[in-house]
Amino acid sequence: MRVGFIGLGSMGRGMAESLLRGGHEVVAWNRTRERAEALRGAGAAVAATPAEAARAGVVLTMLSDDRAVEAVEGGPDGLRAGLPRGGLHVSLSTLAPETVTRLAREHAAAGQDFLAAPVFGRPDVAAAGKLNVVAAGPKAALERARPLLDAVGQRVFPVGEDPAQAALVKLAGNFMLTAAIEALAEALALVGKAGVDRARFLEVLTETLFAAPAYRTYGRALLEGRFAPPGFTLPLGAKDNRLFLQAGERHQVPLPLASLVRDRMLAALARGYGGLDWAAFGHLAEEEAGAPPLPPAEPRG
Amino acid sequence: MRVGFIGLGSMGRGMAESLLRGGHEVVAWNRTRERAEALRGAGAAVAATPAEAARAGVVLTMLSDDRAVEAVEGGPDGLRAGLPRGGLHVSLSTLAPETVTRLAREHAAAGQDFLAAPVFGRPDVAAAGKLNVVAAGPKAALERARPLLDAVGQRVFPVGEDPAQAALVKLAGNFMLTAAIEALAEALALVGKAGVDRARFLEVLTETLFAAPAYRTYGRALLEGRFAPPGFTLPLGAKDNRLFLQAGERHQVPLPLASLVRDRMLAALARGYGGLDWAAFGHLAEEEAGAPPLPPAEPRG
Amino acid sequence: MRVGFIGLGSMGRGMAESLLRGGHEVVAWNRTRERAEALRGAGAAVAATPAEAARAGVVLTMLSDDRAVEAVEGGPDGLRAGLPRGGLHVSLSTLAPETVTRLAREHAAAGQDFLAAPVFGRPDVAAAGKLNVVAAGPKAALERARPLLDAVGQRVFPVGEDPAQAALVKLAGNFMLTAAIEALAEALALVGKAGVDRARFLEVLTETLFAAPAYRTYGRALLEGRFAPPGFTLPLGAKDNRLFLQAGERHQVPLPLASLVRDRMLAALARGYGGLDWAAFGHLAEEEAGAPPLPPAEPRG
Amino acid sequence: MRVGFIGLGSMGRGMAESLLRGGHEVVAWNRTRERAEALRGAGAAVAATPAEAARAGVVLTMLSDDRAVEAVEGGPDGLRAGLPRGGLHVSLSTLAPETVTRLAREHAAAGQDFLAAPVFGRPDVAAAGKLNVVAAGPKAALERARPLLDAVGQRVFPVGEDPAQAALVKLAGNFMLTAAIEALAEALALVGKAGVDRARFLEVLTETLFAAPAYRTYGRALLEGRFAPPGFTLPLGAKDNRLFLQAGERHQVPLPLASLVRDRMLAALARGYGGLDWAAFGHLAEEEAGAPPLPPAEPRG
Repeated sequence: MRVGFIGLGSMGRGMAESLLRGGHEVVAWNRTRERAEALRGAGAAVAATPAEAARAGVVLTMLSDDRAVEAVEGGPDGLRAGLPRGGLHVSLSTLAPETVTRLAREHAAAGQDFLAAPVFGRPDVAAAGKLNVVAAGPKAALERARPLLDAVGQRVFPVGEDPAQAALVKLAGNFMLTAAIEALAEALALVGKAGVDRARFLEVLTETLFAAPAYRTYGRALLEGRFAPPGFTLPLGAKDNRLFLQAGERHQVPLPLASLVRDRMLAALARGYGGLDWAAFGHLAEEEAGAPPLPPAEPRG
Repeated sequence: MRVGFIGLGSMGRGMAESLLRGGHEVVAWNRTRERAEALRGAGAAVAATPAEAARAGVVLTMLSDDRAVEAVEGGPDGLRAGLPRGGLHVSLSTLAPETVTRLAREHAAAGQDFLAAPVFGRPDVAAAGKLNVVAAGPKAALERARPLLDAVGQRVFPVGEDPAQAALVKLAGNFMLTAAIEALAEALALVGKAGVDRARFLEVLTETLFAAPAYRTYGRALLEGRFAPPGFTLPLGAKDNRLFLQAGERHQVPLPLASLVRDRMLAALARGYGGLDWAAFGHLAEEEAGAPPLPPAEPRG
Repeated sequence: MRVGFIGLGSMGRGMAESLLRGGHEVVAWNRTRERAEALRGAGAAVAATPAEAARAGVVLTMLSDDRAVEAVEGGPDGLRAGLPRGGLHVSLSTLAPETVTRLAREHAAAGQDFLAAPVFGRPDVAAAGKLNVVAAGPKAALERARPLLDAVGQRVFPVGEDPAQAALVKLAGNFMLTAAIEALAEALALVGKAGVDRARFLEVLTETLFAAPAYRTYGRALLEGRFAPPGFTLPLGAKDNRLFLQAGERHQVPLPLASLVRDRMLAALARGYGGLDWAAFGHLAEEEAGAPPLPPAEPRG
Repeated sequence: MRVGFIGLGSMGRGMAESLLRGGHEVVAWNRTRERAEALRGAGAAVAATPAEAARAGVVLTMLSDDRAVEAVEGGPDGLRAGLPRGGLHVSLSTLAPETVTRLAREHAAAGQDFLAAPVFGRPDVAAAGKLNVVAAGPKAALERARPLLDAVGQRVFPVGEDPAQAALVKLAGNFMLTAAIEALAEALALVGKAGVDRARFLEVLTETLFAAPAYRTYGRALLEGRFAPPGFTLPLGAKDNRLFLQAGERHQVPLPLASLVRDRMLAALARGYGGLDWAAFGHLAEEEAGAPPLPPAEPRG
């Protein structure tokens, strides 16, 4: 299938490559053009504008936040202008539910379809085409996008016809990860200070009740205090935490554990951990128990 | 091997049966004698006192809390009096690290060995002999106890020679469970109130990043609001939470997530959920979002 | 002095009356005109538009939130259009610091002055002209507004020349009140359940270390469980809490106590306490200790 | 009146001096005898044992914790042994309610009276005889102790006949102070980082809604980051926080704000602030916002 692909950050590049490997024709656009050019070798065409990428009829976006999506949507060179009537926008980004609702409405007004299909997985998983995709939108749109989602993901989980619900499920999944990080961080801080072998403790967890990817990935990161290079940066994690809390506010659902994570993340940002992986907020538990701060992150170049 | 077994509650009975199935001779004692008598059919002998059970030379205890262990340890009819010099006490209960340290010291003073071997798993898992055992104590004691631990558990995790460390690892593991329960509870409360299919949401979690027993077991309980009959009661869960917080206090490690769980558990107890499974504290997240309290628990008979 | 006054809610009316009592000429405007008409008897003129009120040259606004201020500022009938060059807008509302910054910039662009002067005090205090005023803005603007502020307040606290700082001080003051409410609520819930005479306990506090208006006012409300009629409604309190947390986010300052209050307020809103005084969130402490919810609030008519 | 006085720490010495100034005869005992000898100049007699001090018929104790009180109570040289039948023990310390209940019972069994009369105020206030006293116990005992309490305090608040209630009121009062410290700390951290004049902010609070000693004392300490010499040390504050939380546990009252303070205090202890005033836990709010830790405390000599 011929598809536009907008947003070639660490996640998007791997996804675009998965599409190419799957035999799809990709017309790539990125704000910094070099990142799009770098995909030519793998067989991608490069678009000069979001509109041009969208002319493919189906366009996927993988952008860092709501503002970045809005920046490519509108205007004469924007995605919406380029997408034909009957075209389909598949949004893979993690966005606020209400942004997703607005995007769906605007596309509908232009006679276009919209599917929210945020993904779980870090850059290495994206590169391997093994992401988990949560999808919500009209059934026909999902069917049409299916071959593309199958190319980037190992599994697709339809969660309904309202795109905002996929957005909320994704935010809730990210919240679950932060809860696991905080729990691991507190437990490791205590058992470590009490003299227990922390690696052994983690083994007990991840080979029994917590034999799950979330605990293996973040348990290891906390154990080793290794938060660079980031798979997902702390400011983006803080953004998702904020969106989750805002959803709680809208629906009047108190979320004390998410609030706790919020304050941890702010403390980590105030410490200067903004260039590190989001799991670095877990280091605060060690610091509150008396450990020194993390060494300053290498400047990213 | 001939072994004494003290404490035939919902966990202990399954473990004693596993020992009998494994070909061991069991001399059982229980505070309410009927529970010991009930094991006769499966081949157990019944002791009149803890001392008599301990005369087997190796004695296992599975009791609900520190006080219950202390109640069987001392005095002329107590475990310590009956256990021969060179005998071994294997404590399977979840106890405070300092209680474990004291027990080890008292047994050492009597020329006896002590092994802390708390277990992860609920009554059905105990009945199936599939518990996970965390063991700490002198190597020789561990080797001696190994055939017994293999009979009750699917896997044994040695964590060092200081028995107190097994106690702390067990408390930390229980803390991890409560953190998962709280996280699931908040997420389910929000996505449910926002109209997402909660069962589908749980499926997304437990088939991807959270594909672990902890999330499947407690996710289902929360989804169905089913907290009876209890696998592990709330007051016992609150006791373990308290011991974990006390360990944090002793080692000067702040544990805000454990503190949050503490307050949830107290609220659940104040609501009258003391006869329910400990996961019932997770229902508080729904109630704070506007849901009605759980119906009063059936009296246990 | 001739002044426009925009916003005649329970706070604004008392302030406008204080101005009239102080000998000032008031040109009043309110979205629901009846509330402006009601002031005619006290000597006020009634404006047809915000612009008309602003033509007085100095205009005061007392509105419920940022959106309400923005709604009267712009457009051909708006405050800014009516205010002459060299005119002064004194904003008495509790607003986000960045809203205040933007208002100041927009007035500056129109050759007008802007002063942020949010007030502490409830409707009865406003009616008595005894508010405490926190003011920030250019010195000349403050001097010009001084007679008006003296008419509505018992005391004016200048806090600098950047209007956003008055906004933040006001939000922080409201946060301090919520912290006092939560502290009182927890302490009263515990001592009450333990059998201590709660009124006596409150007396001990308010006649010794906590001999301050905040504790007397809210202590009594909590003691009596009396949250209607509201002096300041819960949704407005939740709005201020949100603005305070957002300021924490912008400046990377974790605010765990404000987060705790956030979750309390959401739980109170989910319980249906939205028509009550904001101190009603304090009742959650009692409910978590086992007390029944508050009776449904009378519909406000 | 002739009275024994046991416990001449920074608080007790001031109180004993107040008694002497009030014309009472004081027989002093202290674990480190020098501190008792130092009172001879002011007219006190020095006892060789707690029993000897208690022989006066009325004995006051001002000790740092439950254990210290238990250490002077029992044994042949202990307070209880020396106190005549019909004698009275007035406990001025801050103790667990259940300790107070046990003391009352033990004195009753010995035909003696017991009054719990914990005090609010720091060493300078004790020296000035201006403490606030919360008293509970049999009416006759209170009447008998009244002249003594009037000598040490500016005001006595009877709160009932059950001594445990005075203990709980005192713990709750201390909790209120920690809540005020945390609130001040968070607010100061934010307004300070945002560029507001912190001293001015504090003035706004303490001259309006928070015009109370608690806010003036601790606001100034936080403003100046001055936590030495301690008026009341952090470990003692942490002890009182623990007792308050334990009371919450016993009565099934969740206390999330007290839990937050708990974790702050543990972090402060882990930072090495154990020799500082308890208000030093408030510095954590600054540190989480990016400020450096407090300089190491001078060793106390």
